[in-house]
Amino acid sequence: MTGNQQVLIESLPQGKLTAENYRLAEAPMPEIGDGEVLVKTTAFAITAGTRAGLQGSASYAGAPKSGIVMNGTGVGEVVESNSPAVTKGDQVMAPTGWQAYSAHKATALSVVPTAHNPIDYLGPLGVNGLTAYFGLFDVGRPAQGETVMVSAAAGSVGHLVGQMAKTAGARVVGVCGSDAKGQTLTQDLGFDAAVNYKEDDFRQALKDATADGVDVYFDNTGGDILGSALRRMNIGGRIACCGVVSQYDTDNPAPGPRGIPGLLINKRIEMRGFLVFDFAERYDQARDQIAAWLVSGEVKSLVDEVNGLAAAPQAFVDLLAGGNIGTRVVRLS
Amino acid sequence: MTGNQQVLIESLPQGKLTAENYRLAEAPMPEIGDGEVLVKTTAFAITAGTRAGLQGSASYAGAPKSGIVMNGTGVGEVVESNSPAVTKGDQVMAPTGWQAYSAHKATALSVVPTAHNPIDYLGPLGVNGLTAYFGLFDVGRPAQGETVMVSAAAGSVGHLVGQMAKTAGARVVGVCGSDAKGQTLTQDLGFDAAVNYKEDDFRQALKDATADGVDVYFDNTGGDILGSALRRMNIGGRIACCGVVSQYDTDNPAPGPRGIPGLLINKRIEMRGFLVFDFAERYDQARDQIAAWLVSGEVKSLVDEVNGLAAAPQAFVDLLAGGNIGTRVVRLS
Repeated sequence: MTGNQQVLIESLPQGKLTAENYRLAEAPMPEIGDGEVLVKTTAFAITAGTRAGLQGSASYAGAPKSGIVMNGTGVGEVVESNSPAVTKGDQVMAPTGWQAYSAHKATALSVVPTAHNPIDYLGPLGVNGLTAYFGLFDVGRPAQGETVMVSAAAGSVGHLVGQMAKTAGARVVGVCGSDAKGQTLTQDLGFDAAVNYKEDDFRQALKDATADGVDVYFDNTGGDILGSALRRMNIGGRIACCGVVSQYDTDNPAPGPRGIPGLLINKRIEMRGFLVFDFAERYDQARDQIAAWLVSGEVKSLVDEVNGLAAAPQAFVDLLAGGNIGTRVVRLS
Repeated sequence: MTGNQQVLIESLPQGKLTAENYRLAEAPMPEIGDGEVLVKTTAFAITAGTRAGLQGSASYAGAPKSGIVMNGTGVGEVVESNSPAVTKGDQVMAPTGWQAYSAHKATALSVVPTAHNPIDYLGPLGVNGLTAYFGLFDVGRPAQGETVMVSAAAGSVGHLVGQMAKTAGARVVGVCGSDAKGQTLTQDLGFDAAVNYKEDDFRQALKDATADGVDVYFDNTGGDILGSALRRMNIGGRIACCGVVSQYDTDNPAPGPRGIPGLLINKRIEMRGFLVFDFAERYDQARDQIAAWLVSGEVKSLVDEVNGLAAAPQAFVDLLAGGNIGTRVVRLS
């Protein structure tokens, strides 16, 4: 253990994010204080939502800065501990950021139970899975036989939303950006239909795929796909607003869709934004359920791995362009 | 009783509505069948929402047509009855439209109890009052001490929303289009503050008037005022989507506000559209409460009367430009 390899934010993106907005750096190894632990990163997830934190506009991630380590959730091994709550050798989930080592207060990380695969804490048992779970069941509230539509359906959250909705007896339609993704959704993950939003006939294809309308729309994108969903919603439908990936990779977000609020009124639609952190008290309960689905095979985790810190910036750029299927994970060791 | 005076839709508006989109006509007196009654209109209400029914786009009012009597809710006296449920001389509320006489199935109208003033069935005890009541209490759900913001606050629904919110112990901020309206709200109706959206410093004035943010926004307008409200909403706020008056008087509705769905997510906002008709089972209960407030003086009804069918078209045009304070009523007799 000599230096600490890191990826720093070199500059805030003007327009689209590029790999040149980041740079590799080496910093001294972090030193840990009382009650703190040192974590060696095994892997971290790259998620579209962190792009919002690089915009000048307000975001739950706070004001953006350059010259700091890029933020992200990771899993790793505790290599040094000054806390009685955490033992050297423990596998933990922590806000590691894009770096090889990080120091944390023991209260700021979660120890991964030995029964679980730590990598699942970047996917179905981590923020992505919990986001899918609470957004779908608490905000969307699908009933047996209803139609659930999800956008960015092959993404880290979307592919889990669809599978969870199937456990509730819903019909599931995924919107994604390539036919290959659509095939994965329908052939491997049990989605009833998939629609490619990049095709010219997207609106008609969505209409065909949602012949009974849409009761629950899990929105990861905002923008035009949200606009299309609004036109397919049934009376009394629910829209769970989870992410705005269509608007992240820009410094000039577009207006909201036409039909807001008009269509919300005519169709008595409930549209509700949520952040997973508000459900923290129920994480353990949700993890128990999701872990059971992983064991039974009702929910499968798709992971899309790249290797090494140096690959992370381009992997993020590519993710924002829709290059991933499932959760994009950067593995360090 | 010879002919029946009517106002017909002469043509669907291109762009803004004008009085020339209507024409006065005389039709034969309607004849009533079995189970039907003939109503002589006393007065009808002009409401902004009916403008949406004249747009080509989808509306809960159905597809627009020319050559038919303009629709609207009225009150009147039963002058002939073929139904045992309704007696000649009864005061009733009915979808009279803009005409002197109309025939209705007895089941399609409501008899006004003799204890009530029939004109109140065009305001606080009618669709406007019920809309305010259910939108505020079922969708907005203000708690004691929270801040309620309402747009078109001096309008037929808005002026009632604010007064009802005061009964729940909320702080009430009204947005309206003139300082005279604002004075009526704060001096006569107990609003805590009023803000004129036509002033250049509207956003700053709204910020000043909502120093603790907004917990409940009752949206009658959509458009830019909705956009401004989104920026003032507190975490966990509720937006009751009631009307889109900013978008009615056009055949080319504007896009939705920026920040949808991004701000909904960051602030965990619930935005829900509603139609009063969905609450029909609870109308009587709501009317009892509203009638009690009218008696106690906690809720006052503002009525803005014009006289005669011929005045109705221009009164509607003027209403869409914000000319009314309270419920605009056309009185025929």
